[in-house]
Amino acid sequence: MDTPGSHSTQAADSIFIRSIYDEVLANAEAHENLRVLCKSIGHRLSGSPQLDAAIEWGHTLLAAYGADSVYRQSVMVPHWIRGNREIGRVYLDGSDEPLSITALGGSVGTEGELRAPLVEVRYLEDLDSIGRNAIEDRIVLFNRPMDPLLINTGAAYGGAFDQRSDGASRAAMYGAKGVLVRSLTHALDTFPHTGAMRYRDSIPRIPAAGISTVHASMLHNALKEHPELEVGMELSCEAFPDREQANVIAEIRGSEFPDEYIVIGGHLDSWDIGEGAHDDGAGIVQSIEVLRTLLALGYRPRHTIRIVLFVNEENGNNGGETYAAIAKEKGEVHYAAIESDAGGFSPRGFSMEADDVVYEAFRSWLPYLQPYGVHVARRGWSGVDIRPLKDDYVSLFGLMPDNQRYFDYHHSARDVWENVNKRELELGAASIAALVYLLDQQKP
Amino acid sequence: MDTPGSHSTQAADSIFIRSIYDEVLANAEAHENLRVLCKSIGHRLSGSPQLDAAIEWGHTLLAAYGADSVYRQSVMVPHWIRGNREIGRVYLDGSDEPLSITALGGSVGTEGELRAPLVEVRYLEDLDSIGRNAIEDRIVLFNRPMDPLLINTGAAYGGAFDQRSDGASRAAMYGAKGVLVRSLTHALDTFPHTGAMRYRDSIPRIPAAGISTVHASMLHNALKEHPELEVGMELSCEAFPDREQANVIAEIRGSEFPDEYIVIGGHLDSWDIGEGAHDDGAGIVQSIEVLRTLLALGYRPRHTIRIVLFVNEENGNNGGETYAAIAKEKGEVHYAAIESDAGGFSPRGFSMEADDVVYEAFRSWLPYLQPYGVHVARRGWSGVDIRPLKDDYVSLFGLMPDNQRYFDYHHSARDVWENVNKRELELGAASIAALVYLLDQQKP
Repeated sequence: MDTPGSHSTQAADSIFIRSIYDEVLANAEAHENLRVLCKSIGHRLSGSPQLDAAIEWGHTLLAAYGADSVYRQSVMVPHWIRGNREIGRVYLDGSDEPLSITALGGSVGTEGELRAPLVEVRYLEDLDSIGRNAIEDRIVLFNRPMDPLLINTGAAYGGAFDQRSDGASRAAMYGAKGVLVRSLTHALDTFPHTGAMRYRDSIPRIPAAGISTVHASMLHNALKEHPELEVGMELSCEAFPDREQANVIAEIRGSEFPDEYIVIGGHLDSWDIGEGAHDDGAGIVQSIEVLRTLLALGYRPRHTIRIVLFVNEENGNNGGETYAAIAKEKGEVHYAAIESDAGGFSPRGFSMEADDVVYEAFRSWLPYLQPYGVHVARRGWSGVDIRPLKDDYVSLFGLMPDNQRYFDYHHSARDVWENVNKRELELGAASIAALVYLLDQQKP
Repeated sequence: MDTPGSHSTQAADSIFIRSIYDEVLANAEAHENLRVLCKSIGHRLSGSPQLDAAIEWGHTLLAAYGADSVYRQSVMVPHWIRGNREIGRVYLDGSDEPLSITALGGSVGTEGELRAPLVEVRYLEDLDSIGRNAIEDRIVLFNRPMDPLLINTGAAYGGAFDQRSDGASRAAMYGAKGVLVRSLTHALDTFPHTGAMRYRDSIPRIPAAGISTVHASMLHNALKEHPELEVGMELSCEAFPDREQANVIAEIRGSEFPDEYIVIGGHLDSWDIGEGAHDDGAGIVQSIEVLRTLLALGYRPRHTIRIVLFVNEENGNNGGETYAAIAKEKGEVHYAAIESDAGGFSPRGFSMEADDVVYEAFRSWLPYLQPYGVHVARRGWSGVDIRPLKDDYVSLFGLMPDNQRYFDYHHSARDVWENVNKRELELGAASIAALVYLLDQQKP
């Protein structure tokens, strides 16, 4: 194991990778660590005291596992607070019924209840053809479902995402008073999903909320019979001045190339409903598990292994941007970065943003990983936190778990520890550790 | 689509397979059918009125989807009833605590409470070395966990299975009064798991129950401090005379080879706790979905497609044995059979019991299936229900879903509809339909 990459043999590599999976499946602490993160600390939005507690927890845990060094890296983050009033109603035929809604992250609040007639659109472009008369002084319901025909649910999410991120400003350009956005999930249920939205400069800032898929579909049907129906939304959310929080960084120093870094990370912050279990508690405890496992196996890496618990992925990416800016400033050589931010499900492969040499090297390693269910090498998106590191010399990898269930939980009250399977979580951690080992030994 | 296999082209096949996944992901009724089966009928053990209702339900549904013919095939099945008393207790230091237990299928009941000192063993062979003195008049706890290091949880189940199937008779040979068997699951929780056991001839029949993993581990620890502890078990289960029930069979007649059959099936019976959602409601609604989908696409198969809802897989396999015996008696040519009985999770591949020509043909088809997450071709076990069809001329396939979570639910109160993801279930159904299409078009 301490031989240089050129001396490692296929058999020795296979045996060491088997020992990684054995160590993780027999002794992993990832699932129990996730329980503590989710149950003792809970959700942890940027700026919140829970994120302060999570930073402390991560620092303590990485030190306890015996990292060579652990330190904090200061990051300024936004501070938005949901508050305790999120009420939706539909008014119809003189009576009213509740709607399950939740403010989108960054939304302005309402003054009391905002009540207005409803207009439904599927595409942002539809606003242009519908025109100001049909939109002005109304609440707009963006109601385009995620495309069920896409096998990759991440792609379906990407195809519906604009409604949430840009819907409010686009509707406000035509005088809308507020927007409701169909929750980005394939699940048909009554849980509303939150997530980041942005206001465009010099456009009025109008309140924006996610609405459950059941209620979005119900409004779609109700509008056919009752185009005059009205909806009410009351949101108590509010933005406060930025706060200082911190990425947590732990290192195992490399024996041969201590100044070349392999980064493994996820994000410590989460949305403020549910527990951030899959998104991205899973990636956090998997990253920590990689460190625990390599140390438990007595592995001395050739390159420096750096575990980074990023903050503020959800609403700003200031953690990832800060990390990359400081790395650049210091002239640090980042050889590779691996992110886990797609849920704690059974691993199926890795996506990568890397040159042909690295891509082909990874493909040549698949026989090492296939016995553990890792079959896919895909060019493409790696992860939000590590993306700012992207340049020609850094290979970026994203763990690709099976993602059919991911958006059932994502950004909702259902993203809780109980919905993370211990073995699926562990197989992901072991697969990342195996990739770290291969990158470290066989630098392409 | 109606061209013979020799004329089908790679592009046309790819396009048709895409249309199968599209039809299923957009219009599948499998998840809703599973809801009805699980919630309106519930669990459905052989001999039960619920299985009668499920047979009626399956017959009606297959006819409604427009099968060319639907009929029942009479099968004699065992009739064992759990009854309403299943009580476990540990007696220690003058007080007692409850233990979560559930009778193994086929166990005799107790007369009131059976109370005795406990002896723990890990392997059946340990009974031989421990000897009669330490076993006689005691209750034996078989407490070997499933091996966490096996990636395939089915293999781990197979490696721990003998405790449940044969433990009672092996312990009774040394005079034991009863047995408790650690539940066959990786989950550490308080749900006991049931499953089939068999008594050997001319060995006393002693009561046998599954015990939750939490309580099995608790007893392991308690025995270290208190080897004198006693446990009590009270079971009200009882066997009744065999009953006549039925496999349900539906056909789409083949256009070219109507007398050559491709069978797709799962089992309609389930254990009598939980709802039999993954085991094997999933396989049932997937098999029905294959028929619905092929008809919805206007596909006219060359071979006759036969959907079989088998009965009595769990405790006898009389459904599978009867089907195969009648097929043999009639001289029916079975070209291939596909079973789904490993849970309604994301599909990862197919296992097969087939000759080299068929195996290599399947491998050559993987590029058609990889876009949908089906990467694995594995030689090995197909399925209990179709296994009696095995001979040199029948190719047997088993759908291989991701099985990390399967034994969390299997044979327990957790095997309910809520734990089956709609898209994962649908991808399995579409993958079976795609394999049916390839077998039908490109007979190897």
